[in-house]
Amino acid sequence: MLVKMEKRAMQPPAREGFYLDEIDTPALVVDLDAMEVNLDLMARKARSANVRLRPHAKMHKSPWIGREQISRGAIGVCCQKVSEAEVMVTGGIKDILISNQVVGTVKLDRLAILNREAKVAVCIDHADAVGEISASAKRADVVINTLVEIDVGAGRCGTKSPKKTLELAQAIANEPTLKFGGIQAYHGAAQHFRAHDERQAAIMNAIAITNESVSILASAGLDCDTVGGAGTGTFEFEAASHVYNELQCGSYAFMDADYARNKQKDGTPYNTFHHALFILTTVMSRPDKTTAVVDAGHKAASVDSGFPRPWHLPGAQIQGMSDDHGVIDITRVIDKPARGQKLLLVPGHCDPTVNLHDWYVGVRGLHGMNGFVEAIHPVAARGAYF
Amino acid sequence: MLVKMEKRAMQPPAREGFYLDEIDTPALVVDLDAMEVNLDLMARKARSANVRLRPHAKMHKSPWIGREQISRGAIGVCCQKVSEAEVMVTGGIKDILISNQVVGTVKLDRLAILNREAKVAVCIDHADAVGEISASAKRADVVINTLVEIDVGAGRCGTKSPKKTLELAQAIANEPTLKFGGIQAYHGAAQHFRAHDERQAAIMNAIAITNESVSILASAGLDCDTVGGAGTGTFEFEAASHVYNELQCGSYAFMDADYARNKQKDGTPYNTFHHALFILTTVMSRPDKTTAVVDAGHKAASVDSGFPRPWHLPGAQIQGMSDDHGVIDITRVIDKPARGQKLLLVPGHCDPTVNLHDWYVGVRGLHGMNGFVEAIHPVAARGAYF
Repeated sequence: MLVKMEKRAMQPPAREGFYLDEIDTPALVVDLDAMEVNLDLMARKARSANVRLRPHAKMHKSPWIGREQISRGAIGVCCQKVSEAEVMVTGGIKDILISNQVVGTVKLDRLAILNREAKVAVCIDHADAVGEISASAKRADVVINTLVEIDVGAGRCGTKSPKKTLELAQAIANEPTLKFGGIQAYHGAAQHFRAHDERQAAIMNAIAITNESVSILASAGLDCDTVGGAGTGTFEFEAASHVYNELQCGSYAFMDADYARNKQKDGTPYNTFHHALFILTTVMSRPDKTTAVVDAGHKAASVDSGFPRPWHLPGAQIQGMSDDHGVIDITRVIDKPARGQKLLLVPGHCDPTVNLHDWYVGVRGLHGMNGFVEAIHPVAARGAYF
Repeated sequence: MLVKMEKRAMQPPAREGFYLDEIDTPALVVDLDAMEVNLDLMARKARSANVRLRPHAKMHKSPWIGREQISRGAIGVCCQKVSEAEVMVTGGIKDILISNQVVGTVKLDRLAILNREAKVAVCIDHADAVGEISASAKRADVVINTLVEIDVGAGRCGTKSPKKTLELAQAIANEPTLKFGGIQAYHGAAQHFRAHDERQAAIMNAIAITNESVSILASAGLDCDTVGGAGTGTFEFEAASHVYNELQCGSYAFMDADYARNKQKDGTPYNTFHHALFILTTVMSRPDKTTAVVDAGHKAASVDSGFPRPWHLPGAQIQGMSDDHGVIDITRVIDKPARGQKLLLVPGHCDPTVNLHDWYVGVRGLHGMNGFVEAIHPVAARGAYF
């Protein structure tokens, strides 16, 4: 018996006007004040370095936040998937770079059709992609801005030599339905190197590789409109490079616990941005004096970059998580949380944590455990994997 | 500018009748033949041990699979959250145990109202819960079946002593709107102890603790209708205990890579059940001779219990994942996958991986890389955290 049911999103855990304590748990809470400070600060930093800002929407998955970034000067957003770009375009964002390879006719045809109503550029790192993308562009009667992704040390996708980069750029330039758009040069791994000098060394190397490619392309008469890369962990190096002209930082809007483990030049924790994303959770059991069990586990918080960190609860540490439980060691906590009490957790990694939730609960005036719900927003591109 | 958008689920990545190779990626694929073998086998094992089977729906989140289990003799399902139970009831399942604490009036009132159309039992481990649940039951004019959760070694929720268990059971029995339903005694941690003897020792201890509680309750005139627990890693011990009368296994339906790391008594890998859940993914880059990058990362596969395992690709190993990328070391692979080729991955942990997807793609005749789509089903309780 295979009865079908429509897939429906869950109801939001709160309504506008609720106090923090009235929000059902577990919930994905945004500290709107902190987020806005983060958005303003990054916009200012990009402007003063004279580089463009194209924040990565794979992090927030939300046209709402994308629009907030654009209203502060961002030129558009990055996406990682065509379906993410579709959600952004529907949400009013008209300048997008898919900072990734897109493989397969179904996806490429959607990318091409999307280019009828927005600028949606894409990256390649293989010669076959040129013919594939141009065929889709022809079918949709559009011109697709296409960048070459180069590997600047991350060891993921991207060309491994300037020669290969030049070949691909020339192949793009030779296709009437493609436009050569520049270079994608993101060093993902370097974002999370803990020591300042290690991050700096990795990005100095990335800048050198990128600079060599840009120069070789220029000698062949191919100008790079976009030389893009950088993340929240390293962007100040790329911004000062005079080689990169577009920053693609994402996490700065929310600042997760993992980025807070990075160290600044003086050895102190990285604190340029404020934590603005939280999991609101309820203590559902106090089985003994040293343990509090909360109602948020793997389903509410991704642990790929470590456990979430209890917020404003000095001494508390998550000691284990299962699918629907988080077990917090409160041995060293002075004001031990009671059963029924609500706690905030700072996610270990914001991107995959956001991806677990259907709704953002935007809270204004969140200091300690106060604040009220100003707005509910869908995590519109949650599950946009295609 | 805070423009609202409705939260919509993504479109399914396939249609009925598609061949495996036509499914868009990344997709959550169920090998229907393997799943049905697993469901049949567990039903037979429970029957022959003369214990009831109440599989855990927190794993599959799907009334479709719940009904398949019930049609094979399961008496109902377990859930971990009220919102999961709501989805199951909507999907036609009328006998549910929430094997967890439920804290907060909003949730308890929903639990009570749900009891008007289905039997939905709940667990407690704190005296305050008795008054809270009975108040909601009174408001909804229902009687709620209530079990006491005891800690049998997992160190999560649950009472720590038979004395406490007896106190709670008596308090439940004294409430006119509650019915004492028995004991919840699940040892989650033991499921993943690698050695057979280690799992056995842990469960023998759990059985002893449970048996003591059941006896003390019986002496006080309190019979346990349900003595429930057990998971896919240990259920044969609980089934043979003559203490437990209800098995709550979940993962057996899909069998993930982590359970395959358990060892049987003879030291061979645990293989009672077949892998029936996969992430179908596409190679989107072959940056060098030893690396294949696929389009499935943290958003498509949870890594809380390790990376997914490439399927039918001997020698391949995932060496890193980021949000939308999986980097596979193919140095030792003889038939190296080409760019554009589709690969299956066995998830490290099925529960949180299922939770990432909106749709199951049910494939019939999946052997190697063949098969066709027989049915698409929503992951109906995805995101049911409340």
